[in-house]
Amino acid sequence: MNMKDFIVSPNSKIQLDDYPTTVSDKPKDETLTTELIPNSVERLKELHWRLYAESKKGIIVVLQALDAGGKDEAISYIFSNLNAQGLKTNAFQKPSDTEKKHDYLWRMHDLLPERGQVGILNRSHYEEVIAPRVHDLLGDEVLPEEMDQEEVWQMRYRQINDYERYLQENGFEVIKFFFNVSKDKQRDRLLERLKDPKKNWEFSFSDVEERQHWEEYQEIFAEMLSHTSTEVSPWYVLPADDEWYSRFVISSVMIDVLERIDPQYPTFTDEEQERIDEAIQTLENE
Amino acid sequence: MNMKDFIVSPNSKIQLDDYPTTVSDKPKDETLTTELIPNSVERLKELHWRLYAESKKGIIVVLQALDAGGKDEAISYIFSNLNAQGLKTNAFQKPSDTEKKHDYLWRMHDLLPERGQVGILNRSHYEEVIAPRVHDLLGDEVLPEEMDQEEVWQMRYRQINDYERYLQENGFEVIKFFFNVSKDKQRDRLLERLKDPKKNWEFSFSDVEERQHWEEYQEIFAEMLSHTSTEVSPWYVLPADDEWYSRFVISSVMIDVLERIDPQYPTFTDEEQERIDEAIQTLENE
Repeated sequence: MNMKDFIVSPNSKIQLDDYPTTVSDKPKDETLTTELIPNSVERLKELHWRLYAESKKGIIVVLQALDAGGKDEAISYIFSNLNAQGLKTNAFQKPSDTEKKHDYLWRMHDLLPERGQVGILNRSHYEEVIAPRVHDLLGDEVLPEEMDQEEVWQMRYRQINDYERYLQENGFEVIKFFFNVSKDKQRDRLLERLKDPKKNWEFSFSDVEERQHWEEYQEIFAEMLSHTSTEVSPWYVLPADDEWYSRFVISSVMIDVLERIDPQYPTFTDEEQERIDEAIQTLENE
Repeated sequence: MNMKDFIVSPNSKIQLDDYPTTVSDKPKDETLTTELIPNSVERLKELHWRLYAESKKGIIVVLQALDAGGKDEAISYIFSNLNAQGLKTNAFQKPSDTEKKHDYLWRMHDLLPERGQVGILNRSHYEEVIAPRVHDLLGDEVLPEEMDQEEVWQMRYRQINDYERYLQENGFEVIKFFFNVSKDKQRDRLLERLKDPKKNWEFSFSDVEERQHWEEYQEIFAEMLSHTSTEVSPWYVLPADDEWYSRFVISSVMIDVLERIDPQYPTFTDEEQERIDEAIQTLENE
């Protein structure tokens, strides 16, 4: 697997059709679930413990998808294996009345991880260039007088890029996954949800309504990916019809990022080590 | 008074000596306190009510100074006259343990005003390019490996400019005042604080210690002003030895900004106006 295949090149102009929703050249599901993913998760756990112990850097993981793209399952099967103290999971909701009284990134505050943590954003600030655009929800109070709506989205792309660069420069990597699911596969998964009593609590009628906007969403996502995939914070487009393979790509990318950060367990000065040795002796002599 | 005289031109390289700490061509204190400032405050109150009623834009007022520069008094004599519901006053403190685990602008969140409010920052995010620089407090955890400290301050200037542009583009003007006080005047005011039982609770021994770093502070402030005075968010350097005149400059700048924003009381549609008329009639007929 070459992870670069999934990256949206900075400053490129892509269509979602350029990226497969399923790939032929991939390991079998059985190999993935019994071997590749478990091994990968073990390695990820070790690196995540080091990140947490060192507490210098943090990682922000952005998950964006259409309904039934596979975000929740990726969290369950990959991230839920990590030390919970070093993990912060958030679902991005509709803005509250208080949040609407502020700039649109204001509500990121409570969602951001601390140094040493991995923060998962199940939907994210990218909703601010998607949902209000599809449903024409941009309020007068946030539309600068001299701008039309189209200019606002372009401005927000720039602002989001600046924001993520700022975060990266201050120790927080932003890793972004887009789940590229086909329309047929979405239908299958939505039907499965509806028919399975263990899954139909996940179903919302709005999922079917949103499906009416399929083409518009595809275009808006493609534009968003084109404008906000940067050197410091690239987008990965996952072949989301392949659910196990997509999860394996995610954990592989996470390992790659963590190996680059290369967090270390704290080391001690000679003086500190002496005190540790003394403490060991005291306890052993008890 | 020409307010432009106090502005630091964007992209200029200034020294604090370029700006007077006291000016000769100014109204008498008696004229200021009995006439000019009261009139100015009345106008400011009216505009502030409109800002609050409209609730579209917000204003962030940054106050930076050396000790005894006059920040607190400016808040007391000018801003405290405004409708308190539309006012949010904050003193920027040393970062808490939780705040240290985040990027340095993370703690701005709780200090920002809502739409319709004026937020006063008594010290601000600009401390992040001052205090840790004078006292060499930049932690390893926030210093990117490939950078030296000097590069960090340059990076932060850019990040702060991006941040303030983002705020302005999203409806929040950032107005910045630096109180340019002379070393002699600072001594007089610190002595006054110490001797007056109604003022000496304001005194801190660190004020005298900080005074040892006077020259270093002057240089660092000048560099900060040079790099972060922008078209969208300029710095005003106040002749802070003239306390009443400085307060008058502040209220004049605030009026100027508010007149440019030109907030309006909400108007009603014909239908809404009809319902209002009906309500009036119902109440009058009671």
